[in-house]
Amino acid sequence: MGESGVAITLYELAGADPAIRFSPYCWRIRLALAHKGLAVKGVAWRFTEKSKIAFAKSERVPVLVDAGKTVVDSWRIAEYLDETYDLHPPLLGGTPAHLRFLNAWTDGVVHPAIARIVLKDIHDVLAPDDQAYFRETRERAFGMTLEQVVADRDTTGVAALRAALAPIRTVLRAQPWLGGEAHDYADYILLGSLQWARSVSRFPLLAEDDPIAEWHARGLQLFDGLLAHAKRA
Amino acid sequence: MGESGVAITLYELAGADPAIRFSPYCWRIRLALAHKGLAVKGVAWRFTEKSKIAFAKSERVPVLVDAGKTVVDSWRIAEYLDETYDLHPPLLGGTPAHLRFLNAWTDGVVHPAIARIVLKDIHDVLAPDDQAYFRETRERAFGMTLEQVVADRDTTGVAALRAALAPIRTVLRAQPWLGGEAHDYADYILLGSLQWARSVSRFPLLAEDDPIAEWHARGLQLFDGLLAHAKRA
Repeated sequence: MGESGVAITLYELAGADPAIRFSPYCWRIRLALAHKGLAVKGVAWRFTEKSKIAFAKSERVPVLVDAGKTVVDSWRIAEYLDETYDLHPPLLGGTPAHLRFLNAWTDGVVHPAIARIVLKDIHDVLAPDDQAYFRETRERAFGMTLEQVVADRDTTGVAALRAALAPIRTVLRAQPWLGGEAHDYADYILLGSLQWARSVSRFPLLAEDDPIAEWHARGLQLFDGLLAHAKRA
Repeated sequence: MGESGVAITLYELAGADPAIRFSPYCWRIRLALAHKGLAVKGVAWRFTEKSKIAFAKSERVPVLVDAGKTVVDSWRIAEYLDETYDLHPPLLGGTPAHLRFLNAWTDGVVHPAIARIVLKDIHDVLAPDDQAYFRETRERAFGMTLEQVVADRDTTGVAALRAALAPIRTVLRAQPWLGGEAHDYADYILLGSLQWARSVSRFPLLAEDDPIAEWHARGLQLFDGLLAHAKRA
């Protein structure tokens, strides 16, 4: 199924500098493809380039194209990779439905908490057209300016994120990876979120002595340092 | 392995009325045993009866005794049941490590939010010795009286719980049970928490039109109405 020689294409959110790829959902899939040992050709995409992915009937990335088949939505892409490349190490484990909660919690709890810290930094890496689009849509969603959203990030902002991550600390006391003894999509979900912030900002999300920081340091080195070596703002 | 005729014994937290069993962790195991189709003999235990479970080297329930083997801690008991009764339907699914996050989140986020609502109701169902013990230990932990903890339960208390449950709603939009197409320990984790509140209180934790309430109504009827028919205060 399109494995030998036929490259997979992944449309990824990019900054003004096309080498800066920062979408948490795209990073999940980058890690998922590396986990499966699959080569990928990344295509830089910007918020205002809706027409470029209209073929996928989606207004968002990641969009994955594999041997003529188009798949959108990071969770659906992870399912597709497990279904299609079933002889490669599984991403979602023996009961994929069990991972939906971690996915939903990360999207619904961790992402807003990270956004409160790096929202202005995201804006600053974007191409000019995207900056205008981003400011307008996000300021409407938050009901305040980007600058106001992140105004208290050094105090309540970062404290709220670190408190929200408490259940992750509990899990990492019992096992080395969120996937258990080995890393899998459970880890890639949260690593993708931290890479989102790391790509656009130098703000330290985690305290140095946080057990999650130790896990993150290991995650950065996976797949020959895929995350560690990615371009940052 | 102690299956035919040899009853499993489960020590369960009980109120002044020994028929009121309310520990969320004990309810998880009650549901887990029903899922496995295993008979169980429940033994009422109270907070101040530490000597009664000293044989298990534990100060807490659930304590499970199966054919001379003693197992403590609800997660460990669920693992034990899957290991021992491996021909029965699995509780923890194909990748048990993936369920640890839901377990940790429920214990660390949902339980404090429920406690803010029903803490005084728990106190009120306890036997006199347990009431004194409970008031002293919980008031020290919360840094205020039981009455102060629940003072705002009609407003910020219940709103905080319902907001915290948002990722559960997201999952239940994608699948009928937290376990996927069928219920398993993922569901029993949260059903146990709701049964804790339901056993001691008539306070409505969920709005009637909450999708979680529909799931909960189905959960109450599992295993011939094990939860629905349990005695309440």
